Amino acid sequence: MPSKSYTPVPHSKVRYKPRAHYDRETVHGILDVGLVAHVGMIFGDKPMVIPMAYARLGETIYIHGAKATRLIKKPSDRAPVCLTVTHIDGLVVARSAFHHSVNYRSVVVHGSLRRVETIEEKERALIAVTNHLLPGRWDEVRPMSAKELKATGVLAIEIETASAKVRTGPPVDDEPDYPLPIWAGVLPVRQVMGTPIDDDRLNEGLSPEMSVALARAKFKVG
Amino acid sequence: MPSKSYTPVPHSKVRYKPRAHYDRETVHGILDVGLVAHVGMIFGDKPMVIPMAYARLGETIYIHGAKATRLIKKPSDRAPVCLTVTHIDGLVVARSAFHHSVNYRSVVVHGSLRRVETIEEKERALIAVTNHLLPGRWDEVRPMSAKELKATGVLAIEIETASAKVRTGPPVDDEPDYPLPIWAGVLPVRQVMGTPIDDDRLNEGLSPEMSVALARAKFKVG
Repeated sequence: MPSKSYTPVPHSKVRYKPRAHYDRETVHGILDVGLVAHVGMIFGDKPMVIPMAYARLGETIYIHGAKATRLIKKPSDRAPVCLTVTHIDGLVVARSAFHHSVNYRSVVVHGSLRRVETIEEKERALIAVTNHLLPGRWDEVRPMSAKELKATGVLAIEIETASAKVRTGPPVDDEPDYPLPIWAGVLPVRQVMGTPIDDDRLNEGLSPEMSVALARAKFKVG
Repeated sequence: MPSKSYTPVPHSKVRYKPRAHYDRETVHGILDVGLVAHVGMIFGDKPMVIPMAYARLGETIYIHGAKATRLIKKPSDRAPVCLTVTHIDGLVVARSAFHHSVNYRSVVVHGSLRRVETIEEKERALIAVTNHLLPGRWDEVRPMSAKELKATGVLAIEIETASAKVRTGPPVDDEPDYPLPIWAGVLPVRQVMGTPIDDDRLNEGLSPEMSVALARAKFKVG
């Protein structure tokens, strides 16, 4: 059984300790409600950051996309990767310019890329990525053909270490600034899902399946 | 005068041409309405992706944060950097698992990091970062002291090349799948700002200044 927390290493340590979290529950909780991950890799001598759909299964994160696939030439290759998921929860409005901040929850995962080779793991990964965004969608739709599965490049990242950083609450101003006649507080930010828009070619009498309602609930309906 | 478009280079080329944009207007438009950028750097032999506040001034992007500052040891150092901003606009719900997608607008910027040394440029950068999130905020608050300015690490990224990727519209299903009795369409996603929350220690009679209303308008109030 894995330990309750990830072990901080030099490249995963959060400098400002009050905001740092290394426990799996916090890290997984933030990962599991993100729509998109920003995936960092090294191409030649340059860093590259690409937004990607993803899903977590235990200590493995699956992503799919052409750019990442190109990085791995042989199935045995391993490339270092960093995957970051960020939720913005509010703008922190202070009485001084210096103390303005942002409320957020973020996770930084470090690991290495592995190309998913077997059809079984590929299908498991694609089910996870589809259902991550639309819970249960896989069972509502026309499944992937063998040809489609083959055409899709899927990569796995085994989490080697991860850290979360969370800021919540009001601004923290300098004591002498509190009497100033300046408003301070938090401007809440959230991501909401609107009313589903029917496809123009939708057949008559169809309405969204359960997965759409579940997505709206999961990603906090406005 | 700079040309109208960035020149695609191998590491900035978008593979899927119909979604690629290299014109400055599109790239700047996406950058200018983001709350957070995901900044990728190389630490040792590992990629590192950190969410950061930012602002663009012309062809320079300013960021501030301790992790990035640590990367630059001498003012003369230049480290390659990739900065990515992504807006999620909707989940694209298709009739087949394979054709599910996400509507989004993203920009990937490549450049190199430069440490901002002069107080003048540092102040210009911090004004830009503050006003990027809360338009006009700098003039509403207690300004930065010389000591605060000195304590803040600011980095500049000169945009060497950049590309945007945009997906809009309904799902594109395979022709034989259209008659299937499965709902398809788009589930719109947007970021909204809620009602400002007063700080517990707010002085009586104060209400949010103009910058808060402008932020709500800029980042699309729900």
